Amino acid sequence: MAKRLVPLLNRVLVEKIVPPSKTSAGILLPEKTTKLNSGKVIAVGPGARGRDGKLIPVCVKEGDVVLLPEYGGTEVKLADKEYHLFRDDDILGTLHE
Amino acid sequence: MAKRLVPLLNRVLVEKIVPPSKTSAGILLPEKTTKLNSGKVIAVGPGARGRDGKLIPVCVKEGDVVLLPEYGGTEVKLADKEYHLFRDDDILGTLHE
Amino acid sequence: MAKRLVPLLNRVLVEKIVPPSKTSAGILLPEKTTKLNSGKVIAVGPGARGRDGKLIPVCVKEGDVVLLPEYGGTEVKLADKEYHLFRDDDILGTLHE
Amino acid sequence: MAKRLVPLLNRVLVEKIVPPSKTSAGILLPEKTTKLNSGKVIAVGPGARGRDGKLIPVCVKEGDVVLLPEYGGTEVKLADKEYHLFRDDDILGTLHE
Amino acid sequence: MAKRLVPLLNRVLVEKIVPPSKTSAGILLPEKTTKLNSGKVIAVGPGARGRDGKLIPVCVKEGDVVLLPEYGGTEVKLADKEYHLFRDDDILGTLHE
Amino acid sequence: MAKRLVPLLNRVLVEKIVPPSKTSAGILLPEKTTKLNSGKVIAVGPGARGRDGKLIPVCVKEGDVVLLPEYGGTEVKLADKEYHLFRDDDILGTLHE
Amino acid sequence: MAKRLVPLLNRVLVEKIVPPSKTSAGILLPEKTTKLNSGKVIAVGPGARGRDGKLIPVCVKEGDVVLLPEYGGTEVKLADKEYHLFRDDDILGTLHE
Repeated sequence: MAKRLVPLLNRVLVEKIVPPSKTSAGILLPEKTTKLNSGKVIAVGPGARGRDGKLIPVCVKEGDVVLLPEYGGTEVKLADKEYHLFRDDDILGTLHE
Repeated sequence: MAKRLVPLLNRVLVEKIVPPSKTSAGILLPEKTTKLNSGKVIAVGPGARGRDGKLIPVCVKEGDVVLLPEYGGTEVKLADKEYHLFRDDDILGTLHE
Repeated sequence: MAKRLVPLLNRVLVEKIVPPSKTSAGILLPEKTTKLNSGKVIAVGPGARGRDGKLIPVCVKEGDVVLLPEYGGTEVKLADKEYHLFRDDDILGTLHE
Repeated sequence: MAKRLVPLLNRVLVEKIVPPSKTSAGILLPEKTTKLNSGKVIAVGPGARGRDGKLIPVCVKEGDVVLLPEYGGTEVKLADKEYHLFRDDDILGTLHE
Repeated sequence: MAKRLVPLLNRVLVEKIVPPSKTSAGILLPEKTTKLNSGKVIAVGPGARGRDGKLIPVCVKEGDVVLLPEYGGTEVKLADKEYHLFRDDDILGTLHE
Repeated sequence: MAKRLVPLLNRVLVEKIVPPSKTSAGILLPEKTTKLNSGKVIAVGPGARGRDGKLIPVCVKEGDVVLLPEYGGTEVKLADKEYHLFRDDDILGTLHE
Repeated sequence: MAKRLVPLLNRVLVEKIVPPSKTSAGILLPEKTTKLNSGKVIAVGPGARGRDGKLIPVCVKEGDVVLLPEYGGTEVKLADKEYHLFRDDDILGTLHE
């Protein structure tokens, strides 16, 4: 009974990345390493409508790792997992290794 | 004496989906499974008017199952049944099995 | 000395429909049947002016039965009868039997 | 030393109509008959400027009897007579016998 | 050391007209005759910039006698004389004998 | 180690003119002569971006003596000297002898 | 595990410049010399979207030394170093030796 959500307009469905609180070797990480508020893009809408109804494509794409604003976004629970919806222009940037 | 409502502009008439509180086998479902605020689109308006009066088609269609915002919408009672009117750009996304 | 009001721009003159509190056979109707806030369109303006002054026609017409918002509108008394003026984009939808 | 005022942009100079408090035969009229807030258009401006400075003609004309909003307008005294200035889009409609 | 002020954009430099408090024959005028808030246009700017930077000419000209709003405007002192700056769309109208 | 500031968009860098408090002959000037809030334009940005990103040139130029609004502007210290940044449309006018 | 941030739209990633509190010769500098709120541009987004979705290029570029507003900006920590994100139109100017 899992549902799939297709965002409307310029909304972006994001799964927040919970940073590991210890390394793979089991060493606890200090608090401040975990501060970055990032997420993975799960799905994007077709884009906002500009004047006269033309679509303006969303500026991130599925799979992008993004930097999220500290506040805002709408919590959504799908198949017992927690996601967040953001307008694409509220997303601060994309993160790359 | 049942009345049919045709929404104006980009308004969308939605019937909220009340999730079953027990399974078909009679087992009570825990509270949190029922959290998703969804509805079925009953009727849509012709679209908002862009600049110069051109219509911008509504981004959902009759029969769509949609994710609704937690607040907003206007309650409407038609033939003793409760519906809600939303602007199409307040609807968060469409839900698919 | 009855006056006729021609609304300006996209204003719509509406006569509110007071639902019958008993049936034609005289049976009193319960309160909740009477909740729908509807009205009949008496007159409409020529439309709002879009950019550059072009008219955008009003989205309802004389004779339409409309669903009204719970708040808003301007009360007007003409020839001792009470009417309301609404902007056409505040009217929620049209009602059909 | 009477001055004539030519309104600027889409402003409309209106002389409020004070309804007679008794009929020509001398019978006092009840309060509620006198409620309609109307006025006579004395002068209109050339119109507001749309984008790029083009004029959008005012939607009422000299001599029109208009329905005024309950609040708003600027009181002006010219040659000891009281007038009001309204933006043309604040005027609710025109009144006709 | 008198300075001349050339207003920018759609600003208008106005010298307020202080009505005579007695007639030329020396008779004191009652308070209410002096109520009209008028001024003489001393200088006008080149006009506000519309979209794309085109100038929209100011709707009053040097020498015009104008009706001013009761509030607003910026007081400026030039060569010990007091003037006021107004945006041209805040000026209510022009006054003519 | 003096730095030069090039303003961005329609910002204008102004050095306020502090009026002499006594004449060159040493006579103290009364307070009110010093009231005019003026400045000299030190540098201007390339202009604000209109719709579609076209530049709208700034309406003052380097060397202009300008009348400043009483409030607003951002204080900037460069090489121990105090300057102010204003948006060009907040500047009231240009002053000429 | 250092991450690189690519700003979205017209956002600019800035590393604030902390002015030296003593000279290279070890002499302590007085407080007021350190007041200028400047930063170095680390990365810029592709630009904001104008009407119809066209990009408006960002008005600063990587490597620019910029004057920052006193308030605003979003703090971001990347690889234990502190950065700030600003919209390009909030940046006051560029600084040059």
